[in-house]
Amino acid sequence: MIVLSVDTTTFAGSVALLEKTKLLAEFNIDSPSTYSERLLPAVDFILKTNGMNIKDMDGFALAAGPGSFTGIRIGLSTVKSFSYASGKPVAAVSTLKALAWKLRHPQNHLICPLLDAKKGEIYAALFESRAGKLKEIVPQGAYSPDRFFTLLPSNRIIFFIGNGINAYRDKIFQYFKDKARFSHRSAFIAFEIGLLGYELLRKKKGVKAQELKPIYFRKSQAEEKD
Amino acid sequence: MIVLSVDTTTFAGSVALLEKTKLLAEFNIDSPSTYSERLLPAVDFILKTNGMNIKDMDGFALAAGPGSFTGIRIGLSTVKSFSYASGKPVAAVSTLKALAWKLRHPQNHLICPLLDAKKGEIYAALFESRAGKLKEIVPQGAYSPDRFFTLLPSNRIIFFIGNGINAYRDKIFQYFKDKARFSHRSAFIAFEIGLLGYELLRKKKGVKAQELKPIYFRKSQAEEKD
Repeated sequence: MIVLSVDTTTFAGSVALLEKTKLLAEFNIDSPSTYSERLLPAVDFILKTNGMNIKDMDGFALAAGPGSFTGIRIGLSTVKSFSYASGKPVAAVSTLKALAWKLRHPQNHLICPLLDAKKGEIYAALFESRAGKLKEIVPQGAYSPDRFFTLLPSNRIIFFIGNGINAYRDKIFQYFKDKARFSHRSAFIAFEIGLLGYELLRKKKGVKAQELKPIYFRKSQAEEKD
Repeated sequence: MIVLSVDTTTFAGSVALLEKTKLLAEFNIDSPSTYSERLLPAVDFILKTNGMNIKDMDGFALAAGPGSFTGIRIGLSTVKSFSYASGKPVAAVSTLKALAWKLRHPQNHLICPLLDAKKGEIYAALFESRAGKLKEIVPQGAYSPDRFFTLLPSNRIIFFIGNGINAYRDKIFQYFKDKARFSHRSAFIAFEIGLLGYELLRKKKGVKAQELKPIYFRKSQAEEKD
């Protein structure tokens, strides 16, 4: 099964091509704002490099959020069109789960993916890695940092990952002291989105283009103003 | 300082563009044999995506080996030409050191990059991470696995990384039992080559195109037959 995976939910944008769980190629770019111009050329380049086109895909994986509203919409529109044009299913994968997936080894440790949601909020969750899977301990959502950090255990080591680390490093230290570990992994997640998406597609849990839904957790500014 | 970094020394090929220590973009491909066709288009795509061309580079970083002889030669020829054409220096970086660089956090632990050198040999070294730097404890070279493993301490945890893990996993267990840790990081190293290359270039330790040397550790089959 060949899967094309796309993430445009943060500044760390990425496109990956997978054959089952094997990464064939990926393109990662740290881009402030230009996904709408850069996403299609990146997809085109990756496919051409591997001698493929959209019709060769067996399915698509999309980082469906949470994250930047604009980024989510660009990724969603693009992948919806691929799915609509090819008739192949899409798996919508959580950005937070994909970040946590990077740290699923070794076993039985706590992983906290943390994204800066602006306006003083974070998108976050707490996962525990068990037998190569992730169990959601604190549910994914938009939180105030203080509210969220009080939901986490303070007596166990927690691995933090994501761009929220930069914004809230001092506060994390304040709450968790020597129990906090900061991941140095890259923030590019198209490969992990692809791995999690492949699992869904394999189990026929992909959806049709028309059914694809973003993961927002809160209203966009535009909607708030409505 | 803008640095273009290239690694074609193993099947995990990669190209990265850095501004000092910041990754602007990278392209990673798992390719068995086609670097000679794929390297230039990948460089071209990465540069175009960032609105740059070769003349905008302040220097180049090259994974100079050890690794595949053919891969090393392709990377070397390509980067030599970039350097010659632009008049900008090149930093030659060890593949083994770049692999180990991925694991330099946390402090004071042992890292063993291991590449399958075929013919029953490995390219390997042992590093210790200290204050964000790597100290070479067992020198880089081509070894027989048994010879190399007896050079490593058996009473400390060692993190193994690189494609040699797959070929020699059982033997590593045999020698190091519960002290062995296997890294799940990706094998793409152009970014780490770029980080180490930038450090060299910054200290004026880059070389001219004509002075660029590969890191082989042993003769190629072609040379052996001479």
